Amino acid sequence: MSVDKLIARIIDLQNPSVLGLDPNPSALPPHLMEEAKGDNPFARAAAAVTAYNFALIDGLCDIVPAVKPQLACYEQLRYEGVKAFYDTVAYAQSKGMVVIADGKRGDIGSTCDYYANAFLGETALFGESLPVFDADALTVNAYLGSDGVAPFVKRCKEFDKMIFVLLKTSNPSSGEFQDKLLEGAPLYEAVAAAADRWNEETIGVYGYGKVGAVVGATYPEQLARLRALLPHTFFLVPGYGAQGGGGRDAAAAFDENGLGAVVNSSRGILNAWSKKGLDGRDFVKAAREEALRMRDDLISAIGHPIAAKSL
Amino acid sequence: MSVDKLIARIIDLQNPSVLGLDPNPSALPPHLMEEAKGDNPFARAAAAVTAYNFALIDGLCDIVPAVKPQLACYEQLRYEGVKAFYDTVAYAQSKGMVVIADGKRGDIGSTCDYYANAFLGETALFGESLPVFDADALTVNAYLGSDGVAPFVKRCKEFDKMIFVLLKTSNPSSGEFQDKLLEGAPLYEAVAAAADRWNEETIGVYGYGKVGAVVGATYPEQLARLRALLPHTFFLVPGYGAQGGGGRDAAAAFDENGLGAVVNSSRGILNAWSKKGLDGRDFVKAAREEALRMRDDLISAIGHPIAAKSL
Repeated sequence: MSVDKLIARIIDLQNPSVLGLDPNPSALPPHLMEEAKGDNPFARAAAAVTAYNFALIDGLCDIVPAVKPQLACYEQLRYEGVKAFYDTVAYAQSKGMVVIADGKRGDIGSTCDYYANAFLGETALFGESLPVFDADALTVNAYLGSDGVAPFVKRCKEFDKMIFVLLKTSNPSSGEFQDKLLEGAPLYEAVAAAADRWNEETIGVYGYGKVGAVVGATYPEQLARLRALLPHTFFLVPGYGAQGGGGRDAAAAFDENGLGAVVNSSRGILNAWSKKGLDGRDFVKAAREEALRMRDDLISAIGHPIAAKSL
Repeated sequence: MSVDKLIARIIDLQNPSVLGLDPNPSALPPHLMEEAKGDNPFARAAAAVTAYNFALIDGLCDIVPAVKPQLACYEQLRYEGVKAFYDTVAYAQSKGMVVIADGKRGDIGSTCDYYANAFLGETALFGESLPVFDADALTVNAYLGSDGVAPFVKRCKEFDKMIFVLLKTSNPSSGEFQDKLLEGAPLYEAVAAAADRWNEETIGVYGYGKVGAVVGATYPEQLARLRALLPHTFFLVPGYGAQGGGGRDAAAAFDENGLGAVVNSSRGILNAWSKKGLDGRDFVKAAREEALRMRDDLISAIGHPIAAKSL
């Protein structure tokens, strides 16, 4: 029940933000890397990353509703890193957090089914059907068209999961293709219209469906336009903090109840200790302070408490 | 030296094809699944997949120049499956095969750097810089624009690797966005023009560069047009065999020397044993026969031997 669960957690905690768990070994608190043990450098770094993530989850799960581990960070630590991703997903869920796997996956036909099995569904093995990474949600790249998204939507319905389709990303060159006029409207609006169709028949108790969208805080005008175009689409909003977007920019993502979006911060929270000139021993405390500051910034930009209004 | 090495292998073997190593546990020869050992179902299935891949590599490395493992197949077997992917890459390379990791990755900024480290480059850990999965090439989704591709191009230059950018994919709904007219030309041509720019300054001895493109055999007209538009872009052509494309359809991918593309077949070769009604013990023999048939079909469609003409 990912979309309704995510929204309920946001209301409970009065915090529409998500912690991007994007561990970068060269930016981890030095003592974690030094103290980590493993048979090889990848296993050792993966152990450090796991300890880091678990400490952040322990320290923030009572104030932040969700985490977004970025697959690339784990894949650069080989299969040992992918195991750290798996352990992180399970641990965050055990602490009540919603887990958005940020993989930007997308492929066709049977291959897409395999990705959907891996992140949202189950794999059939030796007469059993087994959950694999079993995240609550996955980010999806829709360049391949509907049959590159349909297997994910199917798993969303079957296992009560969620996807976030890339519409307008937060990076400087996102306009290169996404903003190009495609038969009269920007490409991202064509993808938005498709996402709206895929979202049909999945709308939950708060009016939002299982097929969400990624829209960057760094493009507040497009964000406002997409909010108006897609009243049932829940947004995942990157670009806050290190990428330059602030609470005011992100505010366009929310509806009149303060619902409709979660705003991600990764480096802003993860690297708070180093920005404050600390030695890394206090990384959880620094992260918590920054997460609370971000929460207050977002609620202030919304202008009122997030309402618990359901359908 | 992936692009030149790939072309040299194609000329040596007179075979412009790539074996898609897309193991599906439910389609594996039954004895491999039954005989595999592991602590849990994922480890056991991963052991079966590894044995399967190694046998196919042993049996086909003298006739097929390259393999294309599809990440989704391995990810649906958890981190144990990702280890099987790692082992497969290393084993195929040890037998002289070029390895194209089919991950369709793409992200922004630092995250894209991490994917590039994982598949093509190195990760800095504990004072060392270590190769990770270390494939020869990676498929890339460019929806996020140039800064979602630049880190991959950088690794191609630094580590002599290759990428294949998705232009026109082989699936039925690929036209949904890719064919839409974007300021007068289809979206895939806009991506093609960008791929051509990214390819500059990477052209090797045969006239092809490190930034290739994915163009489906199921759309032969678009394939012919892109071949003409992109004289220095090496194509990875899916859609042959199980997806409906034949040698004649794929022929449009080649230049007048019979160079310029590799054509992928996955299920056509992998499932040859079951299509012939065999029990699976002869899966390598059946795969080899189908790989030879495909080679002959492609050479016949080209109409002459592949020329060794270099610049």
